[in-house]
Amino acid sequence: KGSASIQKVTMIPGDGIGPEISQAVKDIFEAAGAPIIWEDVDVTPIKGPDGNFHLPQAIFDSMAETKMGLKGPLATPIGKGHKSLNLALRKAFSLYANVRPCKSIEGYKTPYDEVDLVTIRENTEGEYSGIEHTIVDGVVQSIKLITETASRRVAEYAFKFARDNNRSTVTAVHKANIMRMSDGLFLKCCREVASKNKDIKFTEHYLDTVCLNMVQDPTQFDVLVMPNLYGDILSDLCAGLIGGLGVTPSGNIGEDGAIFESVHGTAPDIAGQDKANPTALLLSAVMMLRHMQLGEYGDRIEKAALDTIREGEVLTGDLGGEATCSAFTKEICRRIQS
Amino acid sequence: KGSASIQKVTMIPGDGIGPEISQAVKDIFEAAGAPIIWEDVDVTPIKGPDGNFHLPQAIFDSMAETKMGLKGPLATPIGKGHKSLNLALRKAFSLYANVRPCKSIEGYKTPYDEVDLVTIRENTEGEYSGIEHTIVDGVVQSIKLITETASRRVAEYAFKFARDNNRSTVTAVHKANIMRMSDGLFLKCCREVASKNKDIKFTEHYLDTVCLNMVQDPTQFDVLVMPNLYGDILSDLCAGLIGGLGVTPSGNIGEDGAIFESVHGTAPDIAGQDKANPTALLLSAVMMLRHMQLGEYGDRIEKAALDTIREGEVLTGDLGGEATCSAFTKEICRRIQS
Ligand SMILES: CC(C)[C@H](C(=O)O)[C@@H](O)C(=O)O
Ligand SMILES: CC(C)[C@H](C(=O)O)[C@@H](O)C(=O)O
Repeated sequence: KGSASIQKVTMIPGDGIGPEISQAVKDIFEAAGAPIIWEDVDVTPIKGPDGNFHLPQAIFDSMAETKMGLKGPLATPIGKGHKSLNLALRKAFSLYANVRPCKSIEGYKTPYDEVDLVTIRENTEGEYSGIEHTIVDGVVQSIKLITETASRRVAEYAFKFARDNNRSTVTAVHKANIMRMSDGLFLKCCREVASKNKDIKFTEHYLDTVCLNMVQDPTQFDVLVMPNLYGDILSDLCAGLIGGLGVTPSGNIGEDGAIFESVHGTAPDIAGQDKANPTALLLSAVMMLRHMQLGEYGDRIEKAALDTIREGEVLTGDLGGEATCSAFTKEICRRIQS
Repeated sequence: KGSASIQKVTMIPGDGIGPEISQAVKDIFEAAGAPIIWEDVDVTPIKGPDGNFHLPQAIFDSMAETKMGLKGPLATPIGKGHKSLNLALRKAFSLYANVRPCKSIEGYKTPYDEVDLVTIRENTEGEYSGIEHTIVDGVVQSIKLITETASRRVAEYAFKFARDNNRSTVTAVHKANIMRMSDGLFLKCCREVASKNKDIKFTEHYLDTVCLNMVQDPTQFDVLVMPNLYGDILSDLCAGLIGGLGVTPSGNIGEDGAIFESVHGTAPDIAGQDKANPTALLLSAVMMLRHMQLGEYGDRIEKAALDTIREGEVLTGDLGGEATCSAFTKEICRRIQS
């Protein structure tokens, strides 16, 4: 199909293995003829005249134009006052919903198969508000901030996501038995949104119960929506069920743009050695294509990647093989083109 | 051994299946000749002259004398302003450490075997502070309160528990990368206590990473210590790995007393039908015996219960059999006495 017009996407290659896996994604996109051109941007913070570190202007300029980013792993600069760069980006672009699908990969040996669920995490507030105080020496409080606006917005996204992806159920995950007002407000928003989206089934469960049930039978879950920290925890738990962060994609959705990212680390120990596994970033890029209504390219790329893993003949070390990142990448390209 | 003097223990039979499973524990203790006499206490809250509900005086009187309680499941009374009775008890007696061992039961089919770890949860503050406010309409904050006193106290308990139980490692579980001040203080206390307990290995990990690693290989963990909510989540996750809340014990340790409890629900659907599984309460009672330096009785009871489950001939419904609660109980008694 030559009909899709070419779109520009901001690429943040990232640190450590970031450049290698970003290159792998670019090669595979090219092989698939995906109508994307990349604009590489470095987001290493710059010290401003006020002595504080800021994201460089280039990332704001690029995202203002493209509204779409793909991001490799970022190392948080060491030193006082540095917060996570990953969080800084989520904040800078108001990326309010963090979407992490977890789907068992056929042929990839993990404790569980037939997992197929999606965690949707409120991505801007909650336990990540950053508001903390020392009351007196040895007594500290952190504030969990829950707003109706952010709770409703992520709940609405969860139902829209469920509908767009032919999923049947949205489950709100909470501890409103304990945090009656904050999680209570989050839950109330979910219930209200649910009442306006009756085509999608709605259930609600305590976070502790969800964790227990998740390890006993993850196939009972579909789309789950929850406050920030709960999503951090549950998405990692679910990633563990299907093989870890090396194979799980992630997307941060905003009102005016989105950034898709692999959420594994920078793996400095193997950086630059052509050993990295690009799967998480590639599957994040596939999510991005679907989000951009370019799902037909996404489907082809995803199939080639999953077929490569299932065949099991050309795999990187962490996937259980001995192939280089470039050999694994070439094998995916070969499958796309044949 | 006739040497142990008889000790009184406060029994809170609880609601739903509570009375049945409490009776089972009493029968089994009698069969084992455990030197315990029980004082049954009802903790149903009483409406005071101020219109608020309070725990009845009897529980304070009994615990003041015995300093040791065993508790079945409690239903939280329905209606505004009622908080969980379970939490009310933890608070009333300053039960600062919640200890939940998770050990695979041989012969009991669950996704994982060879799990043998213990979660130790700060039980008095953190996300359970109960302090919440509405700032403006639609904007709510909940306060996570972390104190040096409570953090150090639970960390010290974790190291003492590890030593007393021949365990090698204590792991602090936190999100100090996000809640730098509150989880930061908790972590600092753990590190300080660790530096004074060099015979026990100390490690520290992010909660999300622990969840991921837990489902991939729980055998890598030993004793884990963490703030309140994280313990709520992680203990349920771990219970899921070995068969659920029907087989996992729990103890709430205070400076001046302790209450051991099953943490499953009241199961009103099967209450009074002699179908309930007393294992969680029984194993909690075994923990209690060990805590009371009556471990020899605890060992015999535990062995009889686990042998009964492994043999698999006389099991309650939720354990996969068809036996009544009393038949299961009798079988355990028979094994103790033979
Ligand atoms: C890197 C860290 C700040 C981040 C988080 O806690 O959100 C990570 O765990 C994630 O899930 O993206
Ligand atoms: C019943 C509920 C209030 C309690 C908690 O959240 O602590 C329970 O989940 C537990 O783990 O004991």
